[in-house]
Amino acid sequence: EPPGPSIVTSEIPGPKSRELKKQLGEIQNSDAVQFFVDYNKSRGNYICDVDGNTFLDVFNQISSMPLGYNHPALLKAIQDPNNLATFANRPALGALPPVDFVESLHTALLSVAPPGLKQLLTMACGSCSNENAYKAVCMWYMKGKRDGREPNEEELKSVMINKTPGCPQLAFLSFMGGFHGRTFGTLSTTHTKPLHKLDIPAFDWPVAHFPKYKYPLENHVRENSEEDEKCLAEVEDLIEQGSRNGKPIVGLVVEPIQAEGGDNHASDEFFRNLRKITTKKGVAFIVDEVQTGGGPTGKFWAHEHWNLDNPPDIVTFSKKMLTGGFYHKEEFRPKEAYRIYNTWLGDPAKLILLKEVIKVVKKEDLLTNIATAGSQLLKGLQQFEQKHSHLIFNARGRGTFCALDFVDAAARDRALKALHMKGIHCGGCGSKSLRIRTALTFQVSHVNIFLDRLSQVLNEG
Amino acid sequence: EPPGPSIVTSEIPGPKSRELKKQLGEIQNSDAVQFFVDYNKSRGNYICDVDGNTFLDVFNQISSMPLGYNHPALLKAIQDPNNLATFANRPALGALPPVDFVESLHTALLSVAPPGLKQLLTMACGSCSNENAYKAVCMWYMKGKRDGREPNEEELKSVMINKTPGCPQLAFLSFMGGFHGRTFGTLSTTHTKPLHKLDIPAFDWPVAHFPKYKYPLENHVRENSEEDEKCLAEVEDLIEQGSRNGKPIVGLVVEPIQAEGGDNHASDEFFRNLRKITTKKGVAFIVDEVQTGGGPTGKFWAHEHWNLDNPPDIVTFSKKMLTGGFYHKEEFRPKEAYRIYNTWLGDPAKLILLKEVIKVVKKEDLLTNIATAGSQLLKGLQQFEQKHSHLIFNARGRGTFCALDFVDAAARDRALKALHMKGIHCGGCGSKSLRIRTALTFQVSHVNIFLDRLSQVLNEG
Ligand code: FES
Repeated sequence: EPPGPSIVTSEIPGPKSRELKKQLGEIQNSDAVQFFVDYNKSRGNYICDVDGNTFLDVFNQISSMPLGYNHPALLKAIQDPNNLATFANRPALGALPPVDFVESLHTALLSVAPPGLKQLLTMACGSCSNENAYKAVCMWYMKGKRDGREPNEEELKSVMINKTPGCPQLAFLSFMGGFHGRTFGTLSTTHTKPLHKLDIPAFDWPVAHFPKYKYPLENHVRENSEEDEKCLAEVEDLIEQGSRNGKPIVGLVVEPIQAEGGDNHASDEFFRNLRKITTKKGVAFIVDEVQTGGGPTGKFWAHEHWNLDNPPDIVTFSKKMLTGGFYHKEEFRPKEAYRIYNTWLGDPAKLILLKEVIKVVKKEDLLTNIATAGSQLLKGLQQFEQKHSHLIFNARGRGTFCALDFVDAAARDRALKALHMKGIHCGGCGSKSLRIRTALTFQVSHVNIFLDRLSQVLNEG
Repeated sequence: EPPGPSIVTSEIPGPKSRELKKQLGEIQNSDAVQFFVDYNKSRGNYICDVDGNTFLDVFNQISSMPLGYNHPALLKAIQDPNNLATFANRPALGALPPVDFVESLHTALLSVAPPGLKQLLTMACGSCSNENAYKAVCMWYMKGKRDGREPNEEELKSVMINKTPGCPQLAFLSFMGGFHGRTFGTLSTTHTKPLHKLDIPAFDWPVAHFPKYKYPLENHVRENSEEDEKCLAEVEDLIEQGSRNGKPIVGLVVEPIQAEGGDNHASDEFFRNLRKITTKKGVAFIVDEVQTGGGPTGKFWAHEHWNLDNPPDIVTFSKKMLTGGFYHKEEFRPKEAYRIYNTWLGDPAKLILLKEVIKVVKKEDLLTNIATAGSQLLKGLQQFEQKHSHLIFNARGRGTFCALDFVDAAARDRALKALHMKGIHCGGCGSKSLRIRTALTFQVSHVNIFLDRLSQVLNEG
C-alpha cells in the first residue's frame, strides 16, 4: 500500500481519462465515468488512475470492495491451480453444482449467516437478490392463502396471460428514500431520485415515510421518537388499507441505513417496532443489506445492532459479499423445484473469493478494526460540524459507514471535487450528502489522512 | 478430451451426488439438481460427475458454455498475471472503468456486433439485459412523446410514488411460449409454464400467439404460411388495441427460436414481417438472443438468418457470451447519466474470457463447424423420426440448435433418463421436447456418438 495519496495532474479526470471517456462515449453514455482506473497498480485502500494519480479510496466501488484492491489472499486464491476450473467453467448452479458447492455455502455464507436464518439462495447481484426475495414472499403468502389446496384451472390459465387470479395483486411496502434496485419489481420499491424511475411503468405499490431525525440525536430525543411513532403509525395504516382494497401488502422492505437515498438513519427502536408490526400483521419483513452487509457498520450485518427477538424473515445481500443472494426463514423456502431459478444462480468463482474474504475478516478481526476506525472517524466529523456549522451538519454513522450533509448539492459537489484534488476519492448520496464507504481494512491511520484532507477542504470552502 | 462417454454407476445420480444433494437440501430446495460435477476433470464436450461418470454434454449448462469445459485458451487467460487484477477487483463499471475497458468492448463485443448496431451496454445476466433493454425502450418512447420538453413537476412528483404520469402505463408485447427472464418485468413477458409465473404480480401486458407449424415444413407450406399471417394480424391488432386503450405497446420482444418454450421455430419471412409491422407502428423491435446468440445456429446471431433490411432496434445477449448486455440503435441511447445504471454493470473478468472465446471462434472457424455438424445432426434426427414415427416427430433446428418432440412428457423424460445411462447429458424444454445445445466445438465425430446412443434408446423404447 502506498504511504499516502498523490496527485500529479492539474485536473481530475486527467488527460488520459478524458481521452478514454471520449472514446467510451462513442459506444455508450459515459457521463457518469469519474476516471479510468489502473487496477493493476491500485493497492489496499488506494486507487490509482491511468494518469498516475493515487487516491485514498473512501468510496470503494460503491461500497463493494471488502478488502480494498489486490488483497494478497485474493490474488493467491485466483492463482491457486485448484481453483482454475471454477474460474473457467461457470455452472448452471441449480442443475449441475460443483462438488464443493455445499462446503462453499457453509464456509463462505452460512458461517456468517444472520442470527436465526439457516436457509439460503445465491444470486448474481443486488437487484436479482431482491427480486427473488419478493417472489419468495409472494409464493409464501399465496401458499398460505391456498392452505394446502393445489392451484386450480383458472389460476393456471390466467397466469399465462398476466391476469388474476394466477397473477394476484399483491403489494410490497417500501420507504421514501429507499433504494432496492432498478429492475421493474425492485424499482417499484425504490424512491430515491425521479430520474431513477421516470418513464418506467411501476406496480401501484404504496410508499411510507422514513423517519427524518433532528441532529445531534441526544438533543432531540423527544422529537425524534415522535417522528418514529408517526412513521410506524403510517406503516400500520397502509397495511390495513391494503387489506381493505384487496391489494394486500405481503412484504415490507427496508434498508438498515438508507444509503443511496442520503444515508438516512433510524433508531434501533424504530426497527424493532417495524419487526413487531410486520409479525402482528403477517407481513414478511425483508431487510435489504446489499449496502450495509458484510461488516462496514462494525457488525457483520447492520440489523444485528437492533437486537431483535424475532429475526427478519429475509435478509438480502450483494456488493461486499461479492455474490448476491438472500438468507431466509424455513417458511419462505419454495416447495417446488424451478420456482426460484435462473441459469446461473450466482457464480462459484465469487464464492471462492468470498471464502478468502471471510477468512481474513475473522483472522484479522476486521469488525473490531472498523468499529475502532469508525468511532475515530465520526468523532472527527462531529468536531468539523461544530467548527463549520454554516457549511456542514448531521454527521452520522455506524462503523465507518458515515456521512454528513452540506448546505446544498452545489457545496457538496464542490467538496467532492476539492477532495479529489487532495487525493481523496469519495462519493455523494441523496441530494446533498457526502458518504464514506471504506474497505474493512481501513484503519485509524487512514482515518487521520482523510480527516486532514477534509479539514483542509472545509477551511478553504 | 476423453475418447467417449463412460458410465460406471448403476443409477444417475450416483451415490456421491445423491448424498451431496441431500446435504444441499438442508440449505435450499435441491430438487432441480441433476448431479454434482467435477469441473476439474470435465474436458471439452465431456462433463464428469463426482461418481466417476463421463457424459457427452449436449446441454452445456443451459447452453451457456461456448467452448466446452476447461478450454486451454481460457485456462491460459486466467493464469496470465496481466489479468490477475481484473479477477481480483470487480469495478463499478459505470463510474470507474479499467484502463482497457474501451479496448475490451471493441475486441470482445463490437467485433461481433449484429449488423447495423454500434451502441452497447454490458449487464450481468439475461434478466437484467432484458429488463434494461425494456427500460431503454420506455425512455426512448417517452422522450419522443415529450418532444424536447423537460419533465414537468407533476411527472417528477408522481414518479416517486409509482403513479402516472411519471410512471406511465406502457406495455410490451410478447409471445405465448416466449421466455425472457424471471424478474418482475421480464416475467410479465415470459409465458412458458404456469409454475414460472404463479403467485407473482404481473404487469397487465398483452400476449400474442407464436406460429405453430406442421412438420416436415416442405409438406405444409400453405398451412404454415397461413399460420404466419394469422399471428402477424394478431400482433397488429394488439398494437392497435393498445393505442386505443391508452396502454400503448412500446416494444415487442421475441426470441429467434423460442427455447425454454419448446424450441418453437418461425419462418424468416415471419420475422421480416414482424420487423416491418413494428417499424410501421413505431414499436421497438427487441430480439432476445440470450439463448440463440454466440454461434449455436451457425451464424453468430440467429437473427442474421432473416436477412433484415432494417436491423432490430435492440439485441440482448448473455449465456454463451459470458457477460450479459444489449446492442442497440443510436436512438435508444439514454441521454442522461445514471438512467441505465447499476453497481457493477457486468464484469470485466467475463470480458477477458469472452475475448478469448471470440478469438478461438474466429481462428478455428467454429461457425462453419457448427453449420456442418448441425446439418449432420439434423439429417440424423430426421432419419430417426421416419423410422420411429410413433414415438418422435418435428425434428427441427438450425446449426446444432436442434430439437425433436416426443409423443408426451413421460416418453421424453424416459428418453432423457435412458440417454443419461448411455453417457449422454441432454435437456428437455417445453412440455415434451428434447433439446440439443452443444458447445461450438461440437464436431461431426460427436454428432455420431450422440446419434448412435439416441438410436439405441429409440430402438429400446
Ligand atoms: S439481475 Fe442480477 S445479475 Fe442480472
